[in-house]
Amino acid sequence: MIRPPFSTLDEFRAVLAAMPGPDESAQAAAVARNGHLTKPPGALGRLEDLAIWYAGWRGVAQPLLSAPQIIVFAGNHGVTARGVSAFPAEVTAQMVANFEAGGAAINQLATAFGAKIDVVALDLARPTADFTTGPAMSESELVAALSAGWLAVSPAADLLVTGEMGIGNTTSAAALAHALFGGAPADWVGRGTGVDDHGLALKAQVVTEGLAANPGAATDALAALGCLGGRELAAMAGAIARARAERIPVILDGFICTAAAAALERAVPGALDHAVAGHVSAEPGHRRVLQALGKAPLLSLGMRLGEGSGAALAIAVLKGAVACHSGMATFAEAGVSGG
Amino acid sequence: MIRPPFSTLDEFRAVLAAMPGPDESAQAAAVARNGHLTKPPGALGRLEDLAIWYAGWRGVAQPLLSAPQIIVFAGNHGVTARGVSAFPAEVTAQMVANFEAGGAAINQLATAFGAKIDVVALDLARPTADFTTGPAMSESELVAALSAGWLAVSPAADLLVTGEMGIGNTTSAAALAHALFGGAPADWVGRGTGVDDHGLALKAQVVTEGLAANPGAATDALAALGCLGGRELAAMAGAIARARAERIPVILDGFICTAAAAALERAVPGALDHAVAGHVSAEPGHRRVLQALGKAPLLSLGMRLGEGSGAALAIAVLKGAVACHSGMATFAEAGVSGG
Repeated sequence: MIRPPFSTLDEFRAVLAAMPGPDESAQAAAVARNGHLTKPPGALGRLEDLAIWYAGWRGVAQPLLSAPQIIVFAGNHGVTARGVSAFPAEVTAQMVANFEAGGAAINQLATAFGAKIDVVALDLARPTADFTTGPAMSESELVAALSAGWLAVSPAADLLVTGEMGIGNTTSAAALAHALFGGAPADWVGRGTGVDDHGLALKAQVVTEGLAANPGAATDALAALGCLGGRELAAMAGAIARARAERIPVILDGFICTAAAAALERAVPGALDHAVAGHVSAEPGHRRVLQALGKAPLLSLGMRLGEGSGAALAIAVLKGAVACHSGMATFAEAGVSGG
Repeated sequence: MIRPPFSTLDEFRAVLAAMPGPDESAQAAAVARNGHLTKPPGALGRLEDLAIWYAGWRGVAQPLLSAPQIIVFAGNHGVTARGVSAFPAEVTAQMVANFEAGGAAINQLATAFGAKIDVVALDLARPTADFTTGPAMSESELVAALSAGWLAVSPAADLLVTGEMGIGNTTSAAALAHALFGGAPADWVGRGTGVDDHGLALKAQVVTEGLAANPGAATDALAALGCLGGRELAAMAGAIARARAERIPVILDGFICTAAAAALERAVPGALDHAVAGHVSAEPGHRRVLQALGKAPLLSLGMRLGEGSGAALAIAVLKGAVACHSGMATFAEAGVSGG
């Protein structure tokens, strides 16, 4: 399936509302196969559920996982003018150069786990507007970012991880999560790359102002992505939607990725059924978003880097799950008693 | 360092008491390097601690992890005569054949994460004695099993995972853990490969009888390994000790592996400083042993298969940690501000 980019947000809404589900017969065949493998029932724990879930989305009872794609989207945020980050905004472009040169954490993880990595810098010289004074993006800017994400996904991939880089984007994600799930601003802010107590209080204040300046964000999840999210958040949402259209399973990364993805689920319940949570980060809002989405993380290692790094590490867990499911002998094949 | 097998338990005790520590200068250099990598301080969470720990034990500030070895030890247990397992004892040998043919879960995980796998079947035709009537092994049998483990480690490996197969061995591990850490028998027993409530009560009863029949087990951790452990438990302990002698870091697997390893730590505090906990299994005694050892698991995925499978999956986490540490650019190298 190849689709042109969207020209309006309503076109994107319509596509999102008509996404395919998993292949139920492949899923049932995977459940049956799992029951015959040379292990006590359930002894591989969550690996069994993962393999069955993966088989269903891939439409194959005994799938391979050999072509994961990691896409790192980068964007700049007008809200950095408010002093919400410990790092200056120019670090976004510097880190994009680091991704392209292979020097960042995500590059090492991609190599370690056999993933293709693509880097998409989104109009870095033109930051989004400061969302405390009105929408971060116009509808056309939002649609352009969703489309950039959609088009960045390789249809030949058999797994997608979306990561991000954008100085200021934990504040953007906090505002978005607050718009999507309510609660108090302080529930959603954290130290990001390392702000102090003053910075933390400032982030909560900025989130409050952001919601006040964008009253429509609380009632329309996709519009919220444009009002409060940056380009890299919208692009991740677009890529995750494209993966659903292609039945490519997704591993969600940390707070920023998950907040962006949550906009899809709030717009169309079930829109993230093809996605698992790769990890829970040290950014406190992440655990709350995962709980709201009903997704249990695969890893909990105190990571809070972004770039897709937690999800990239979780590629290995999914690879292990699929390798066991598809490669193990059955009781009958191995001549083992008790199956 | 190459050492002949031990001929007495006291020889093993003496070697265990004189083991090397990590290379502190390599560890300090790894800490310094970690501080210069292109990420906010601490943003890789536990991956940073893991990489520094690994660097210290390997004696290299910027190490590689390229030659992991997985050894699966198999043994048979006289205590299976008491009906403590859901599977018949002949499954041990059948699963050894499955390991050798490449059909088990551990084979798939070894292939997925680039580990060499060795299978060591320990006198399967001659089960240990039923420990409810006296020691499972004589001292010479214990020393032979420790030596088999010691000799199975490849000095060229740069990481060790020990796994096990032995119908009945969760009962053996429960008795050993009870001898090492006290508490109630019911604290240490679980459903293993799948016993029902009656089987669970029987296992607790068998553990009680085992400790009564082996009064020396509560006061001598290494003797307890012979009184209550099977050959595969003693061999895992021997292999983990050898790894320490060679400064090869170890990832501990589930309840049985960790109980066996705990005998070393109870005999010589610090004997497991070169080991991390790969996962926490669904077998309830495992969490207790890890807590007693002060080791936080890397993974918690409800696995309870043994074979080394949980630790094998955790190889990927350690590989990711080492890849980031040794492969990332520094702030200066990448020209990124704020380092």
